[in-house]
Amino acid sequence: MTTRVGGFRFSAAAAGIKKPGRLDVGLAVADAPAVAAGVFTRNLVRAAPVVVAARRVRSGFAQAILANSGCANACTGSAGLGAALSTTETVAHVLGIASELILPASTGVIGALLPAARINPHATELARSLSPDKGDDFAQAILTTDRWPKVESVTVGPATLVGIAKGAGMIHPDVGLLSLSEPLMTSRPPHATLLVFLFTDLRVPRPELEVALVAATDKTFNACTVDGDTSTNDTVLALASGVSRHQASMGELTEALEAVCGKLARSMVLDGEGAEHAVDVRVRGLPTAQAARQVAQTVATSLLVKTALHGRDANWGRLLAAAGRAGVDFRPEKASISIAGVEIVRAGVSLGSGAEARAAQEMASPTYAVELVLGTGPGEFTYITSDLGHGYVDVNASYRS
Amino acid sequence: MTTRVGGFRFSAAAAGIKKPGRLDVGLAVADAPAVAAGVFTRNLVRAAPVVVAARRVRSGFAQAILANSGCANACTGSAGLGAALSTTETVAHVLGIASELILPASTGVIGALLPAARINPHATELARSLSPDKGDDFAQAILTTDRWPKVESVTVGPATLVGIAKGAGMIHPDVGLLSLSEPLMTSRPPHATLLVFLFTDLRVPRPELEVALVAATDKTFNACTVDGDTSTNDTVLALASGVSRHQASMGELTEALEAVCGKLARSMVLDGEGAEHAVDVRVRGLPTAQAARQVAQTVATSLLVKTALHGRDANWGRLLAAAGRAGVDFRPEKASISIAGVEIVRAGVSLGSGAEARAAQEMASPTYAVELVLGTGPGEFTYITSDLGHGYVDVNASYRS
Repeated sequence: MTTRVGGFRFSAAAAGIKKPGRLDVGLAVADAPAVAAGVFTRNLVRAAPVVVAARRVRSGFAQAILANSGCANACTGSAGLGAALSTTETVAHVLGIASELILPASTGVIGALLPAARINPHATELARSLSPDKGDDFAQAILTTDRWPKVESVTVGPATLVGIAKGAGMIHPDVGLLSLSEPLMTSRPPHATLLVFLFTDLRVPRPELEVALVAATDKTFNACTVDGDTSTNDTVLALASGVSRHQASMGELTEALEAVCGKLARSMVLDGEGAEHAVDVRVRGLPTAQAARQVAQTVATSLLVKTALHGRDANWGRLLAAAGRAGVDFRPEKASISIAGVEIVRAGVSLGSGAEARAAQEMASPTYAVELVLGTGPGEFTYITSDLGHGYVDVNASYRS
Repeated sequence: MTTRVGGFRFSAAAAGIKKPGRLDVGLAVADAPAVAAGVFTRNLVRAAPVVVAARRVRSGFAQAILANSGCANACTGSAGLGAALSTTETVAHVLGIASELILPASTGVIGALLPAARINPHATELARSLSPDKGDDFAQAILTTDRWPKVESVTVGPATLVGIAKGAGMIHPDVGLLSLSEPLMTSRPPHATLLVFLFTDLRVPRPELEVALVAATDKTFNACTVDGDTSTNDTVLALASGVSRHQASMGELTEALEAVCGKLARSMVLDGEGAEHAVDVRVRGLPTAQAARQVAQTVATSLLVKTALHGRDANWGRLLAAAGRAGVDFRPEKASISIAGVEIVRAGVSLGSGAEARAAQEMASPTYAVELVLGTGPGEFTYITSDLGHGYVDVNASYRS
């Protein structure tokens, strides 16, 4: 997957935040200030880089993203804020741009202070090694518990949209535009997060970029879950250099963002801690999309559903019981359910153990869809979820203390 | 723990619904029609016995409870309804009372039809062996994946209140008064449920019993969780024989019900599938109890919190991050947190690794409290949760199909 996109260069360095020698700092720089928009975790507890990036992106312009893994710089109080400011200032100085044009992002251990003293000496190296071809290094530098880097792209006429992301656990994003009354904390939560960086050479007016980004993230990242836990660091940034001179329609732009973000979301869920499957939970037939979303989210976060998916058990009763507690009115005795295209319940009646056995076989696939048709209304929504097995417990219940 | 309570007799039989020889049908009978109230799952998907019991208890009187394990008779359509009616009619005939006075309750495999033909031949034996001393057999007969029977009692002046319960998984009760437009389904969800039967010789007017039962369950069973999944069969029934002639005040009655239901809820959570701990999540300092409840429930159902509890990890960051996504406004930088009485965060500042290590040691205890003080308001609420480890995955991700 190409990471080349007009007007942007990338680099990465091993600053010793993770184990020595592993890439842990990434820099993305636009040749000139780019149109920028960002959405951030709506968790009340927000990391220092989120606070800084949310404030800076309000200007509508940004020229660089400085991202690191190995340390989330979350719950680190004013010292954490100072570290985020110090690293972006150092890189800005080397690049010869205003530090306000650099957006920081961090992921990794929470409660640990960002080691600015380790990162800053690498600023010159990061600036000198910038190249249009080093997006893969950048993608590598932001990984934590991820098993693979996440890069997706689409073309829009002569232009390109590239997305680079990380995420594997603490994945239940709820990102949106932030107001600027940000609380700050000193604490030490977990270690994973969603970071997404979108780069395009489309020419996009700032208001349109923001509106399209909010719309696309709401249907993709805000509709996927690994464990139902929303991180303190979730960040989605979009930068548009405009160098293709191609201006997409609002529809084209939203479609392109949705396509890239949708693929990245599915890749993250499939890479969910201990997960073997990324499953689309599709709910149809309800009066509104909002009602369908509520049911889909309830089913997608149900522990009994997620353990059944892990066990490749076509246990439609768990699906239906989860739907039944979502707080949305429907007639269970009218429901139809299929798994991986195999219909197992029609109009509330089981189609038998043969159908269930066929569905169970399909559940060996890494990706498939579970569909619940709960009525005849126009409202539908799809949520992406992972299965939950021993691997998740292994990663998250280690005797750390 | 005594199960003797004036005016009630119990019996149990092995009808072969579970493995041969294991008690799986329990009968509780009052000497005369007792004042009765019941609350039932608010899941849209409801088992046949829930439908029948909810309708019958509306009269305000009941004389018997016929409960079985090994089969939930849920999602079994009109045949399931017929089986529930048939078994209660047979027992009513033998007892010489109206079948409308018998409340059925079932727990076990869902989707399987209640085998009335196996139960009905045991009606005479069940009636003949009734004894004030056989509450323990009754308690044994309703268990499924439970590791131990659940019996609690309190005295109120000269009177007694006894509670007998089962529950270990699919525990996230949301019980309330049911309207009578019950949907019915044919399906096959999981296997566990909450069944609670409360017997007292207090003299209680029907309206007071219902009001007190709703209040007590809301603070106890509706405030405990094993896996966040609400069952199709959750049932709480209260019968008052009045033979002590002692009439409790509304306050005494509610207090007694809360005491017994609270102990039963804690015992169920401690017996949660794969669980080693029952942990009180106490949230204080918010403007309202409802806001505190919302935060406590979000923390109590967080997978990252539950796996940290399993790992005996004093990971207060996970606690705070879960609180931060509950949709309730508070200042994280003012939060104080203690685990098992050990303060680890004060006014948003960590008290250091020594405090965390002391807290982690206390987390070896089977029961303890986690306390989040999130402000200075009067609103507080306590939710009971279990830890989540490999045992839960073992029970629920077996390759059934």
